Amino acid sequence: MGRVTERRKVIRIRDGVVSARPDTLVAEEPLEIRLNGKPLAITMRTPGDDFALAAGFLVSEGVLGAADELQNIVYCAGAMVDGSNTYNIVDVKTAPGVVIPDITLERNVYTTSSCGLCGKASLDAVRTTTRWSIDETEGNSTPPVRLEPELLASLPDRLRAAQRIFDRTGGLHAAALFREDGELLDIREDVGRHNAVDKLVGRALQSGALPLSRTILLVSGRASFELAQKAVMAGLPVLAAVSAPSSLAVDLAAETGLTLVGFLRGASMNVYAGEHRIALRAAAPQG
Amino acid sequence: MGRVTERRKVIRIRDGVVSARPDTLVAEEPLEIRLNGKPLAITMRTPGDDFALAAGFLVSEGVLGAADELQNIVYCAGAMVDGSNTYNIVDVKTAPGVVIPDITLERNVYTTSSCGLCGKASLDAVRTTTRWSIDETEGNSTPPVRLEPELLASLPDRLRAAQRIFDRTGGLHAAALFREDGELLDIREDVGRHNAVDKLVGRALQSGALPLSRTILLVSGRASFELAQKAVMAGLPVLAAVSAPSSLAVDLAAETGLTLVGFLRGASMNVYAGEHRIALRAAAPQG
Repeated sequence: MGRVTERRKVIRIRDGVVSARPDTLVAEEPLEIRLNGKPLAITMRTPGDDFALAAGFLVSEGVLGAADELQNIVYCAGAMVDGSNTYNIVDVKTAPGVVIPDITLERNVYTTSSCGLCGKASLDAVRTTTRWSIDETEGNSTPPVRLEPELLASLPDRLRAAQRIFDRTGGLHAAALFREDGELLDIREDVGRHNAVDKLVGRALQSGALPLSRTILLVSGRASFELAQKAVMAGLPVLAAVSAPSSLAVDLAAETGLTLVGFLRGASMNVYAGEHRIALRAAAPQG
Repeated sequence: MGRVTERRKVIRIRDGVVSARPDTLVAEEPLEIRLNGKPLAITMRTPGDDFALAAGFLVSEGVLGAADELQNIVYCAGAMVDGSNTYNIVDVKTAPGVVIPDITLERNVYTTSSCGLCGKASLDAVRTTTRWSIDETEGNSTPPVRLEPELLASLPDRLRAAQRIFDRTGGLHAAALFREDGELLDIREDVGRHNAVDKLVGRALQSGALPLSRTILLVSGRASFELAQKAVMAGLPVLAAVSAPSSLAVDLAAETGLTLVGFLRGASMNVYAGEHRIALRAAAPQG
């Protein structure tokens, strides 16, 4: 339970020289998430923060939006022959009165498949289940988050500095939550990038911090549709990725008002949507 | 249909200089896979090779193992309001007499969740559904695949050279199939690493090439449990990854006889399991 890394024997070959030694690997185990006793999804995850992972997954699915909608989360008896607990099944019990959306129960879906049947249907589905608008033009009274490019550019180094495990295994994705002034609020790592985000969002739900309306989500890899969707479902206004976004992630960001930044490396970045939150200066005059 | 990339407007920031231009992104769309008319799974994939993706997915699930078990694959009418085909739903019809394993139908699972409820159960489930042993100690008469480290070390450069799209979008995972003598047989790219492997395996099924017993599978990223599982289900003896494996991938490889190589970079690599297929030389004497 909670093993983030495991040790295995490895044979190293370096320029023809062979040596055997123990190596540290990222731990990967399946987690079955149940909702009020009913199996809902299985995800391959790095053990640890399992309750947060389950809670965050249910935020993404539109089931949970506030701490008081969550009654409790428990580990179920596992699949071992002797009946001992494998800590690979969690059951999330919602508070009385919480209405479970039909979309969640009509399919036993894996974490990445909460979308519909085509790009357009997916976008519509997300818009209808989102509790919080992240589009400040829709009547929000607070001023929009506005970020200097220099602040964004400083975040990846701080993510890497905060990653305790990555250098040991090379096998983990990271997701970090920053306040709009750049303060690091939380960081989670997992063998699955969606799990790292679910763990962040789930902890925010548990601490009553949803919607995450004044924060920046930074992910160590690519920005897929599912990560953009998770940001929107948590009320996050800014998603920044070290690597490339997909077309559908950009479409979702444009439709929902999410600021989507990709290829955030050094002093360079690409802004794919929601550029009104980035303090852009015109190109400096030449010569 | 078959759009591998899409164009979107992007605002580039380079050292404080802002410019707007069109950018090429990897296309991402959901694909619903139906089996004999019944919805089975949804995956986020890069359009193209959809029939191969569906066929390969069903090899991983233990449903298909030979070309003659596949009757046909068709696109279904999609989810557009006007009834037009979105090309995001495929239906796979199995040949008469093909027995569908219970495990596949008892859950509508996403592509990565064909495992059981814990590490041990997963390994057992894979072993029981595998049609082909890749462990030559179990009575196979053919000599085992045996690879020089230099041959393995040459593969990542050849994968990158063959990747036509990666340099344009930075958002694609690649999977390549090599013959044991190093000849490149096929390469597929996708926004999802499991999809790239399913597309390779599906094409092999369609061309009657299963089991892939004299081949090497190379993936551009990490070696997760699911990728190791897909290799085993296709009868592949060697899985090599440019990045790290997970603990469960190593465990599965050790149990099934799969050779698992990670961190394949330059002349360096780590062999995590199945080292009998690697031509290891002892360390050179010092001085």
